[in-house]
Amino acid sequence: MKSFCLFENAISDIFYEESALNGVKRVANTVSEDLFLVTGKKPNVTSILENCISEQIIITATLGNSALIDSFIERKLLNVNDITGKRECYVIKVVETPFDDFPKIKQALVIIGSDKRGAIYGLFRLSEMCGVSPLVFWGDAEPEKKDKIHLEFENDIVSKQPSVKYRGFFINDEWPAFGKWCSEKYGDVNAKAYDKVFELLLRLKGNYLWPAMWRSSFSEDGPGLENARLADEYGVIMGSSHHEPLCRAGVEWQNHYTQYGNDNTWSFISNSDAITEFWKDGVLRNKDFEKIITIGMRGENDSHLMGKDATIQDNINVLKKAIAVQNQLLKEIFNTELKHIPRMFAIYKEVEDFFFGADGSDGLRDFDGIKDVILLLSDDNHGLLRAIPQAQDKPHSGGYGIYYHFDYHGGPYSYEWLNHTNLVKAWEQLTMAYEYGIREMWIVNVGDIKGNEYPLSFFMDLAYDYDKWGISNLDSAAEYTRQWITAQFGSAISSSQKTQIHNILDAYTTWSAVRIPESLNPDVFHNNFHEIENTYNAITNIMAQASVLRAELPRQCLSAFESMVYFPSMAFFNTMLLNLEAGMNHIHAERGSLVANRYSTSLLEKISMDRFYMDGFHKILNGKWNHMMESAHMCFRTWDDNNWTYPIAQNIAPIPHPKILVSFRGDNTYNLGHHWQEKIPICNAEMIRPDINKIIFDIDSRGAIDFNFSITCDKQWLSFSKNNGKSNLKEQPRTSIEVFLDRDKLGNNGEEIALIQINFEFLDGTIKMALLNVKASNNNYSRHPGAFLETQNYLCINAVHYNEKTDVDGMGWQIVSRLGRTGNAIKSFPVTKNWINESIRPYVKYDFIVSETREYILCFYLSPRNPMIKGGALKGFFSVNDSQPKSFDIVESDFYAGGSNKDWSYGATNNIRKISIPISLNKGLNHLKFYAAEANVIPENIVIYPKDIPLPETYLAPPESYRVPEH
Amino acid sequence: MKSFCLFENAISDIFYEESALNGVKRVANTVSEDLFLVTGKKPNVTSILENCISEQIIITATLGNSALIDSFIERKLLNVNDITGKRECYVIKVVETPFDDFPKIKQALVIIGSDKRGAIYGLFRLSEMCGVSPLVFWGDAEPEKKDKIHLEFENDIVSKQPSVKYRGFFINDEWPAFGKWCSEKYGDVNAKAYDKVFELLLRLKGNYLWPAMWRSSFSEDGPGLENARLADEYGVIMGSSHHEPLCRAGVEWQNHYTQYGNDNTWSFISNSDAITEFWKDGVLRNKDFEKIITIGMRGENDSHLMGKDATIQDNINVLKKAIAVQNQLLKEIFNTELKHIPRMFAIYKEVEDFFFGADGSDGLRDFDGIKDVILLLSDDNHGLLRAIPQAQDKPHSGGYGIYYHFDYHGGPYSYEWLNHTNLVKAWEQLTMAYEYGIREMWIVNVGDIKGNEYPLSFFMDLAYDYDKWGISNLDSAAEYTRQWITAQFGSAISSSQKTQIHNILDAYTTWSAVRIPESLNPDVFHNNFHEIENTYNAITNIMAQASVLRAELPRQCLSAFESMVYFPSMAFFNTMLLNLEAGMNHIHAERGSLVANRYSTSLLEKISMDRFYMDGFHKILNGKWNHMMESAHMCFRTWDDNNWTYPIAQNIAPIPHPKILVSFRGDNTYNLGHHWQEKIPICNAEMIRPDINKIIFDIDSRGAIDFNFSITCDKQWLSFSKNNGKSNLKEQPRTSIEVFLDRDKLGNNGEEIALIQINFEFLDGTIKMALLNVKASNNNYSRHPGAFLETQNYLCINAVHYNEKTDVDGMGWQIVSRLGRTGNAIKSFPVTKNWINESIRPYVKYDFIVSETREYILCFYLSPRNPMIKGGALKGFFSVNDSQPKSFDIVESDFYAGGSNKDWSYGATNNIRKISIPISLNKGLNHLKFYAAEANVIPENIVIYPKDIPLPETYLAPPESYRVPEH
Repeated sequence: MKSFCLFENAISDIFYEESALNGVKRVANTVSEDLFLVTGKKPNVTSILENCISEQIIITATLGNSALIDSFIERKLLNVNDITGKRECYVIKVVETPFDDFPKIKQALVIIGSDKRGAIYGLFRLSEMCGVSPLVFWGDAEPEKKDKIHLEFENDIVSKQPSVKYRGFFINDEWPAFGKWCSEKYGDVNAKAYDKVFELLLRLKGNYLWPAMWRSSFSEDGPGLENARLADEYGVIMGSSHHEPLCRAGVEWQNHYTQYGNDNTWSFISNSDAITEFWKDGVLRNKDFEKIITIGMRGENDSHLMGKDATIQDNINVLKKAIAVQNQLLKEIFNTELKHIPRMFAIYKEVEDFFFGADGSDGLRDFDGIKDVILLLSDDNHGLLRAIPQAQDKPHSGGYGIYYHFDYHGGPYSYEWLNHTNLVKAWEQLTMAYEYGIREMWIVNVGDIKGNEYPLSFFMDLAYDYDKWGISNLDSAAEYTRQWITAQFGSAISSSQKTQIHNILDAYTTWSAVRIPESLNPDVFHNNFHEIENTYNAITNIMAQASVLRAELPRQCLSAFESMVYFPSMAFFNTMLLNLEAGMNHIHAERGSLVANRYSTSLLEKISMDRFYMDGFHKILNGKWNHMMESAHMCFRTWDDNNWTYPIAQNIAPIPHPKILVSFRGDNTYNLGHHWQEKIPICNAEMIRPDINKIIFDIDSRGAIDFNFSITCDKQWLSFSKNNGKSNLKEQPRTSIEVFLDRDKLGNNGEEIALIQINFEFLDGTIKMALLNVKASNNNYSRHPGAFLETQNYLCINAVHYNEKTDVDGMGWQIVSRLGRTGNAIKSFPVTKNWINESIRPYVKYDFIVSETREYILCFYLSPRNPMIKGGALKGFFSVNDSQPKSFDIVESDFYAGGSNKDWSYGATNNIRKISIPISLNKGLNHLKFYAAEANVIPENIVIYPKDIPLPETYLAPPESYRVPEH
Repeated sequence: MKSFCLFENAISDIFYEESALNGVKRVANTVSEDLFLVTGKKPNVTSILENCISEQIIITATLGNSALIDSFIERKLLNVNDITGKRECYVIKVVETPFDDFPKIKQALVIIGSDKRGAIYGLFRLSEMCGVSPLVFWGDAEPEKKDKIHLEFENDIVSKQPSVKYRGFFINDEWPAFGKWCSEKYGDVNAKAYDKVFELLLRLKGNYLWPAMWRSSFSEDGPGLENARLADEYGVIMGSSHHEPLCRAGVEWQNHYTQYGNDNTWSFISNSDAITEFWKDGVLRNKDFEKIITIGMRGENDSHLMGKDATIQDNINVLKKAIAVQNQLLKEIFNTELKHIPRMFAIYKEVEDFFFGADGSDGLRDFDGIKDVILLLSDDNHGLLRAIPQAQDKPHSGGYGIYYHFDYHGGPYSYEWLNHTNLVKAWEQLTMAYEYGIREMWIVNVGDIKGNEYPLSFFMDLAYDYDKWGISNLDSAAEYTRQWITAQFGSAISSSQKTQIHNILDAYTTWSAVRIPESLNPDVFHNNFHEIENTYNAITNIMAQASVLRAELPRQCLSAFESMVYFPSMAFFNTMLLNLEAGMNHIHAERGSLVANRYSTSLLEKISMDRFYMDGFHKILNGKWNHMMESAHMCFRTWDDNNWTYPIAQNIAPIPHPKILVSFRGDNTYNLGHHWQEKIPICNAEMIRPDINKIIFDIDSRGAIDFNFSITCDKQWLSFSKNNGKSNLKEQPRTSIEVFLDRDKLGNNGEEIALIQINFEFLDGTIKMALLNVKASNNNYSRHPGAFLETQNYLCINAVHYNEKTDVDGMGWQIVSRLGRTGNAIKSFPVTKNWINESIRPYVKYDFIVSETREYILCFYLSPRNPMIKGGALKGFFSVNDSQPKSFDIVESDFYAGGSNKDWSYGATNNIRKISIPISLNKGLNHLKFYAAEANVIPENIVIYPKDIPLPETYLAPPESYRVPEH
């Protein structure tokens, strides 16, 4: 055990040699500032040993660039065997009396990088060890103040080589938020801004970046080359987005084409000479900076390469020609073999067809021009893998990368406002990518950066240390979140407060993945099964917790909390409330009920809260993040925000007529009073469930005429919170009646039905009557312990609540917490194992009781995953009551289609895929087995309902059915 | 010329003999009260000649019942040859010194009826001659006060025998309005109420009535038999509605079945004995009163006879059995041959199939049981004939009647609130009925009576005097309306005021037939082609005229005006405005435009005006008509008023973002500011029309951020009411810009296009731009005088604007004013002439110019008439550019189907039928000929548009196209 006193009264100086790399020097100064934040004292940063005044100093250096380290090695003060020859590694060691000729320096904390980024990562590791979060700037994580820092080392700190070679993010869709923020704070998207971006990337142990490009030209706006120069200094490897080849930003062509001719056409058929020269100048300009060169070609502005008339083969021909020219250019400029020039080719959207081949054309797959090039695959823009390399595929010399999305501008909905990533889903898909061999490059579209600090941290750490956070750690996301919260808030808050923050983040990322705010609308959630009511209550509960927590937290935690937790989550939750209010407003307006007006008022309040939370966020730390929450966040469909409106507030004027509306709470049916043609009262059967003993019905009004009412019932087992009353429509348009079930009075005679009669006497003398039925039952199912019970004409079982699980060779279904849309789900492991052609498959088994022998619909609610093979299908297997397993298509072939497939869009929008299959069941106990097929088959819920009785609409699935207790 | 001084200082006594019929005596007293209203003096009514005090007296008597008249005849003081042996005729003569023994009586005005009703009609004729309207009570037509009444007779007044034998109305759908009114005014629907109803029927020269029956039993509620007794005294022939056989009201069975057994089933299979006895007692009860007995059987409450499982043949068998039993009962009770017992069998809805036969069954058509029975056909419940007797049909011994509707409770929409009958349509269909031999019985469903006084008057007069108002009088409705207005308002108002009342009635009955208020909704009218705007302006103009007129009219005209014209029409017009406001509200709310809120406010104002007009009507003459305007009048679909709501008022909360909306006035397209993916500006081509030189565009906003704007244009020929300005969204969410065309600057180079650019500078610094195109042309078409011109990608020609008309043998198309939905239409005469199988047909020809040689859609807008033969079709014939005439189906067979056919419902709801046919046209001049086929083919508009360019939605058809002036 070694100890290093970094700070106690005095603070250690930071020393690097004059020969040290500029980037290392720069970061050494940044770390010095970090330490100032913790200690209130700024370490002296120097390259002149004589200037060091502290007895303990920090030394940083890079292997192969440091005579000092060489001398230390020679003097056997240390060895660097652990990192020698490795990428981006560092070692941190304490060296006693490092300088014979400077005995005043008693100890040195030596941070040695195997290369520049290794040294930098090591320096930032020191910051973290002292309590400085990587999000000190971007997350406003104010470090805890310390009066001393003693670092204890059991062993040297030796970093691992990063798991994924190129790890980084893409600033994209950056207007209005990031763009306006940069303009206000730095005057442009320039080097002052990128200084903060590069620093973040490196603190997160990333190494690769795609710069903002909507209206920016990275290599021109620094000003001039300053952005690119600074990146290189920092050791940031620059890329450009998938449609910006050869170091040229997308906007450059139209700005500069006149240098190359009169034709502004971005066509490699009609204008290839000009474009080639344009590319050449781009590469020459950025020649000396570390980079990965994007090759290939797409249309301008992220569009199709050629017109709609062109065939796949036409496109392939042009692409081949362009890539050949590009390779030739690069060979000439760099004067080396192509394999030494890092290149990336992105297989994005329609480029897939050109790569894999389609319509009888062969594709670029075996094209020599992409040899040694990193093939960058893409998720489906919504965080889900597709068309990934399979075991049977030929290995690709350049390796594979993945372009992943935490932010997206396009169909079916753009999401650019806040974070909507559930870490578990990202973990589940990204670990699959890694397991399937995508390890060369991970780049994530992170939008404006701000707002995505939390998932970005996870993404970078997962890419950096797969051993720790990867597939073997089923609890990775939760464990990461706990660690992340500690990194941001330190020890200043209690563990219960940390848990609350965790809960808020979980609720926020659960609900925002249930439905991104941009795609919310008043019709998403339904009144049936209390869905709107329950969702509203869940949201208001967590908001109340967040508000209480905000009031409780110590001052120094407030900026991080408000910036990364409170305002984003509250702003998001408020969009939920706003749409739920609007939903109820529209439902009641459609009914003509005066209750609608109450919802209209609260809807308008929620709309004003939308602006309130935005303003609150923009005012954090005197406006530090002004503009960052300005993105469209309602009805943001496809490419533009032209649908951006708040929901309409609907108001009802009462009709001059006595007209009541009676409805059961949480159900969309209603009754306008008994009518001679209407023979069947509305009915509530919730209390058929043994665990429900109370329901509510509401008496609303369409007219302005007040009434007296009295309630009678033909059964003793029901009682009411009120048996009569008087309306006061002006003050209170709704009268709610609680209905209580006394199960002792109900008896055991099977299903019983009560008739409730409500008599109305209106002030204008009109007499009306409404009839309601309530069903209840005391049936005993104890002979089927653990089985789920059909009530209200449905069964819903959460997939994790199986009665039995059978593995094969230790492989099979595992519960993954929070993987499902609203809760846990199951997934088969190992993820590379495909069971489709196996004769025996692992399975889970469910027991359930249905009320009649008849035809049912079995509806699987599955996570909306894509086929892993391009054009491939996705299949599931199930069996009912021990029949032979049957297969069913979850996704047929030709899915996605560049984002235009309807079923794919449904999944991307609703975050669920529903597959309905007719089955026959027998009255009483039945079994369902669900078999492992492939890793992308993830059941969340199993819903069963009679074929002839449509299930009332829900968004989330009905509540889980009653389960007979185990003995 | 004879003169009779009825009143001058003294007023003539009214004398009848003691032996006179009670009904005649009663009406003589009523006439005495009429005369009091006019003169302020009440004639002495007496049967004792000695009691007469005036020198001139009025004598009334009935042939065969008056010794006095016999004596007059004997004394050759008069003869009655003109009316002897005739039905319901009267003669009015002046007899000098009628009584030798009463020389004081110098003159008698003798009113002699050929029968009771004849005498009564004669008496009421006298009232009318003195200025008392038949609507003195029901229409509040206050008679003009006179200080003398000298009646001049060029000849004796000899009435004609009525054209239709049984003429009357049906009080139906009488709750809440008529029912509550009766209850409040008379305590029940009893004889006090019926006294007013019978009087009205007789004043209108009717003789037949179906009583209210929703909750009433006519022969029990008088109290007791008093209703029936009073009817008989009055000479009112009572019937019962089509589903109430053998003098029994519909409600009686459930009230009395226990007298006949324990089974309340209304089934002539399972319960025929009880029902037979029930019927028997009904007939026995009403035996002595004049009546027409409804025979046959339907289900209870106007429903189907047998269940859905029963076949047509099952139904026919039951019906035959029931009718046989009914006939047998009647023969026994009346102890006479069946042909002497007036009976009626209604062929209503599904009964049609039982009558005509269907599904291989023969039907009752030749069933002996209906021999000598009046066969009551029905319109389609919406005033349109169907399945009427054809020339080739065997004559029916009992003759035919028609059950017509001015009020209806059922699908697709109920109409019970106000009058919605356009007299011209009623005239057109009822004269067809008459021409096709339906002359035995005309009965009209008149709802609550009140509200339908105007069409009811016309119906009764048309049935009474077909010679005057029938088929030969193409201007019948207008002439009748002039006369009717004079009858209600007398000479107290100027002829210009009468014309204004006429205009209001025309506008009211036009627009309420365009769309009945019950079926109005905010989506009916469209913003395209200025439809909402133009409709709104037309309605507000006529409302303003009505208000001015109301302020101008003399006091004594006010009650009639308010009761029959002002309040009903204003209440109706207000429902139009309300829905138009709601339409604009919803259109702009859907756009997210703040302008929506302005419409929301005015919508709520209009809703309050709905209650205001209702209240105003209910307060006329101290509440005389309280409750009469209480029927549901919004969204009254099918059988119940459960959809009765006011339109939803929609409000928009501004988004926190700069976002303008630019749109051309009267067009549904809009633009949210130029967007990089949006290449085509919105375009206005209205000024391609030579007669349009001004258009308007509006700058609205979705966001709350104010802006400055400036307008530039690349063409000199356009100028703007403003070239720049500044928004003030809080005060005025819309900025409107007028665009003026200077045709002199435009030149003659064909179609030209201008680009308008609007630059916006928002207060938050955002810069935006919007682009608009305006097309204009000075093309010269004078080489095609009279031709219509395609502009804006459409042609619309009003059918009456033909260029040429060719008759055949003096037969052919005629213009009928106001026959179309919004204007005049053409119809082929004579109406009994069918041209379908003729080789030469009359035609009209239209000339028009189209812009390109291409495929077009030719869309005929036809009056929504039905086939005249059950199950028959309706065909039209047209030819384009002198090709052979082509036939097209307007209605295929199996139409209507008891009111459930979708196409029929479309016609009934929209009051139009649209038939689209693809045609090829040549650039330049084309011709269209439209041929006579049968009388129910009534073209209103001809719309032509390019097949590939959908016509923007309109309800009324686009505005008529520009027509090249004749030289």
